[in-house]
Amino acid sequence: MGNRVITISREFGSGGRTIGRKVAQKLGIPCYDSELIQKIAQESGFAETYIKDAGEYAPGGFLASAFGNRSFGPTNEDYLWNIQYQIIEELAEKGPCVIVGRCADYILQDKADCLKVFIHASMEFRAERIVREYGEREVSPEQRLKDKDKRRAAYHRFYTNMKWGRAQNYHITLDSGELGIDKCVDLITELY
Amino acid sequence: MGNRVITISREFGSGGRTIGRKVAQKLGIPCYDSELIQKIAQESGFAETYIKDAGEYAPGGFLASAFGNRSFGPTNEDYLWNIQYQIIEELAEKGPCVIVGRCADYILQDKADCLKVFIHASMEFRAERIVREYGEREVSPEQRLKDKDKRRAAYHRFYTNMKWGRAQNYHITLDSGELGIDKCVDLITELY
Repeated sequence: MGNRVITISREFGSGGRTIGRKVAQKLGIPCYDSELIQKIAQESGFAETYIKDAGEYAPGGFLASAFGNRSFGPTNEDYLWNIQYQIIEELAEKGPCVIVGRCADYILQDKADCLKVFIHASMEFRAERIVREYGEREVSPEQRLKDKDKRRAAYHRFYTNMKWGRAQNYHITLDSGELGIDKCVDLITELY
Repeated sequence: MGNRVITISREFGSGGRTIGRKVAQKLGIPCYDSELIQKIAQESGFAETYIKDAGEYAPGGFLASAFGNRSFGPTNEDYLWNIQYQIIEELAEKGPCVIVGRCADYILQDKADCLKVFIHASMEFRAERIVREYGEREVSPEQRLKDKDKRRAAYHRFYTNMKWGRAQNYHITLDSGELGIDKCVDLITELY
């Protein structure tokens, strides 16, 4: 057992990233999310936007290329997965921290003393929240949520063979819409 | 929204029933589990043991008769389900309480202000616990756990069409093995 690390998986729009940041702030430890993506970008030489897309965003991105090209050997996504894997291991070795997303719970399962958290919320709560946080899009917020959840679940399943959002995979799962962001922060901090 | 009710679903051996009782004790409200089964028994005229068996215990019981006889109309299990449904509604109307198992989360979803909890734990933790609590059996504890989980999941799925153990169905899910029974009691009590 290495350092104590909090890993947060989350549904898009549930406030998981905000919760991660607030928990880290309260505990006085670092929180890695977009910083982690930047670090991957620097080490891989890939443009930051591309990596963000490859992970889960681009239309057809991860799913199309991962399943489409695999018969020809490792894809760009496999390459990124390996770099990301190493970086997450290094971050966890460096000291206690919060890591949001990126399958960190799976990557660190035997390497760090993890508190594994999953944050979710109702479609209504998340739809309202993503429009407020990220603005309107041509596509409806509900459709954006469905697409994003599907990609995250597929990405997680593909690389970890674990089912995303299955209670048994986490130490605690919380409905941020019903309980409130700040209550979630309190509970996680209390458990750390 | 009626009374505030805590519903606890749980994996066999995870200590969900103990947690329910302790939470109820701390909050000074009643906890229904075996009492509920007795109440069903009295109202239905069925022997208590039989009902316990029909719910989830008997070898082949619920699964065999539910799926086997359905084409000939409602089964005994359907009859029990309806009685149980009414009793749970009545209990929730009577006042704040904790209800362990029996799909109460589903039954009360639009009728009470529920805090929906799911308790789970690793196979090792539960195996050790059921031997201590319920004694040795001919069948290995691991096999007993697998059988029981399978029956609970099938029962839940059949009557509620909801997936048992899916984080999104609950406000909070907790790993009682990793967090400890008493910590779970504290967290649930704090959220009430």
